[in-house]
Amino acid sequence: MRTQVGIIGAGPAGLFLAHLLKQKGIESIVLEAKSRDYVEGRVRAGVLEASTIDVMDRLGLGDRMHREGLVDEGLDMRFRGRTIHLDLPDLTGRSVMIYGQQEVVKDLIAARLAAGDPLHFEAPVSRLAGLDSASPQIHYAENGEEKVLTCDFVAGCDGFHGVSRACVPEDLMKVYHHAYDFAWLGVLARARPLSDMTYSNSDRGFALCSRRSMQVSRLYLQVPSTERLEDWSDDRFWDELHQRMFDDDRSEVAEGEIFQRDMAHLRAFVATPMHYGRLYMAGDAVHIVPPAGAKGLNMAVADARVLAAALARYYRDNTSEMLDSYTDRCAERVWKTIRFSTALTGLLHRFSDQTEFQRELQLSELEYISGSRAAQQSIAEQYVNLSNVDI
Amino acid sequence: MRTQVGIIGAGPAGLFLAHLLKQKGIESIVLEAKSRDYVEGRVRAGVLEASTIDVMDRLGLGDRMHREGLVDEGLDMRFRGRTIHLDLPDLTGRSVMIYGQQEVVKDLIAARLAAGDPLHFEAPVSRLAGLDSASPQIHYAENGEEKVLTCDFVAGCDGFHGVSRACVPEDLMKVYHHAYDFAWLGVLARARPLSDMTYSNSDRGFALCSRRSMQVSRLYLQVPSTERLEDWSDDRFWDELHQRMFDDDRSEVAEGEIFQRDMAHLRAFVATPMHYGRLYMAGDAVHIVPPAGAKGLNMAVADARVLAAALARYYRDNTSEMLDSYTDRCAERVWKTIRFSTALTGLLHRFSDQTEFQRELQLSELEYISGSRAAQQSIAEQYVNLSNVDI
Repeated sequence: MRTQVGIIGAGPAGLFLAHLLKQKGIESIVLEAKSRDYVEGRVRAGVLEASTIDVMDRLGLGDRMHREGLVDEGLDMRFRGRTIHLDLPDLTGRSVMIYGQQEVVKDLIAARLAAGDPLHFEAPVSRLAGLDSASPQIHYAENGEEKVLTCDFVAGCDGFHGVSRACVPEDLMKVYHHAYDFAWLGVLARARPLSDMTYSNSDRGFALCSRRSMQVSRLYLQVPSTERLEDWSDDRFWDELHQRMFDDDRSEVAEGEIFQRDMAHLRAFVATPMHYGRLYMAGDAVHIVPPAGAKGLNMAVADARVLAAALARYYRDNTSEMLDSYTDRCAERVWKTIRFSTALTGLLHRFSDQTEFQRELQLSELEYISGSRAAQQSIAEQYVNLSNVDI
Repeated sequence: MRTQVGIIGAGPAGLFLAHLLKQKGIESIVLEAKSRDYVEGRVRAGVLEASTIDVMDRLGLGDRMHREGLVDEGLDMRFRGRTIHLDLPDLTGRSVMIYGQQEVVKDLIAARLAAGDPLHFEAPVSRLAGLDSASPQIHYAENGEEKVLTCDFVAGCDGFHGVSRACVPEDLMKVYHHAYDFAWLGVLARARPLSDMTYSNSDRGFALCSRRSMQVSRLYLQVPSTERLEDWSDDRFWDELHQRMFDDDRSEVAEGEIFQRDMAHLRAFVATPMHYGRLYMAGDAVHIVPPAGAKGLNMAVADARVLAAALARYYRDNTSEMLDSYTDRCAERVWKTIRFSTALTGLLHRFSDQTEFQRELQLSELEYISGSRAAQQSIAEQYVNLSNVDI
């Protein structure tokens, strides 16, 4: 089997890349280790930046998003019982879209399959070969059979634990890693959500109330990394959430049936360069943000856009100039995104090694933000459109 | 001897307080441990915020400042060989004034003495008594004689090492302290200064080029706390400064005779409450900022303004309401100032425990600031007018 671009992974990075390449007349085959059900069921963040909304539209994939998604014009931050309200259109001229990552993934998969374009589920990749040649090979399994996909380029969109990054010789890659000692305990609940995405920095720790629809709330609590899901009864979850949201009389945050729970450990991770030979990586394979700010999907889309443009340039003008500078073209944006996400994490969470002095500085920063339009604009502009790329 | 307000310390906090009280018809006596020459010779920062300029003017003390001071409309930050230029009037509508703290002190002392108002040099305070009574007493020495000043209120403006704060029972005061393991090696040089205040974050550490006049530069290098002044020859200083300013061909930063050197260890310090019984403290006695951003004098002036207003209210309306809330009225501003100064310190210095990841985040923040008007406005507004108080 042969194609122009072999794409490993049917998450946002791989699926957007496949669609963007098709739009430019470039063939690709997507190989995904897991089943379609599994991939479509993965609950992740649900905030689409302005530039991501634009890409969905330009790909002709925005219909359901505009129908079912919720335009979100506000970002709230609570502290000391008060609320900082960021009016996104007023501060930036743009807003974001609440539309779960798994809904985006469903739309991209459906469109790919409807067009009859190749997308193989349950096709795990075992190894890559010939990455430094003009015909790299992807070895994978499908229906119990060993297969080989030969291509011009390999796109490694297979996430943090994927095989792609592991194929790069260690001494050619620099890795930055910061682990947090806490996690986000997340639930989906059939409960009327707050009207705005609301982050809260309370003495008891961080909480986040967001919405997936008018009937479904996505709710998070900061918990120690060592915490176990089974130790969190519904009652304990709601009690803690009300307290952290300063909802002392339990009148504001509506409760409802909790039908999904998960625990996400926080890390920040950057691997560079993002390419090696004819392997080009995008999304979580080369960088992970902590979840505050909801940048993961948006960053992956931006990577895919840069990579698609570079591949298009290669096929159109027979030059690898843009491909050679792929990492450089991404680096500034990637680091700005990591920085924003870690800064927002630092602003909103309690830290086990936080001194009383540092705690006062943190609350004082929130005080300052509450009174400064410039500071509010700075947060809003990064929240709304940090993943825009100029290509 | 008796007066309404006994002021300990003839630094900016004590001198401004004395002048502000006089304007409101309140008597005070200022006691200063050191000689006039010593006090007038202490080299400190030299950036006056907009609100501090206004206070000088309203006190009728701004003539020499406007004649000899330099209006400063720019704040520059360098990194990776590039410069972020903050145009203060464009970003905030205001500018700052370059006028050395010791010049301010000279003006305030001269005006106080010219008016025949009491200001005693070489009058060290040994102890305070009766702070919880209506007639507190200041015990001090003058010309080898033990003396007592009885007053309605004691103003502790005697700095970090002063006697005032030490008179507050330990269990009634909360102290926050953060020490840095580096210092600022500062010099005054007869050399043409750069036109803008220029901070630099280089791989070799922080540097700052500022001006005291058109002929005198005030220059700083970040050095380890353990460094000794005598290990820094002029040649070594200039070599290091050129490198940290990215002035590789030594063409930009002019050299000249170095005629003053000092070393300032960096700390952040907050003591609260700022009053105990009839003792009210202001300035360095209760809070120290790291020097980046030049907030020390401006914060002291703001404290003095709040305290003077509270004392005026007491004498006019016979109510201690404003005095009782003195700490609360200062707290938010003090913490915002400490926060800005520590954040600017964090943005611009190298840290011994800084990981490569943190270093990239720091440079990425500078990248972000270089492209964001909102972020530039946020820094500029805090630089120009964080010490304004609404009284």
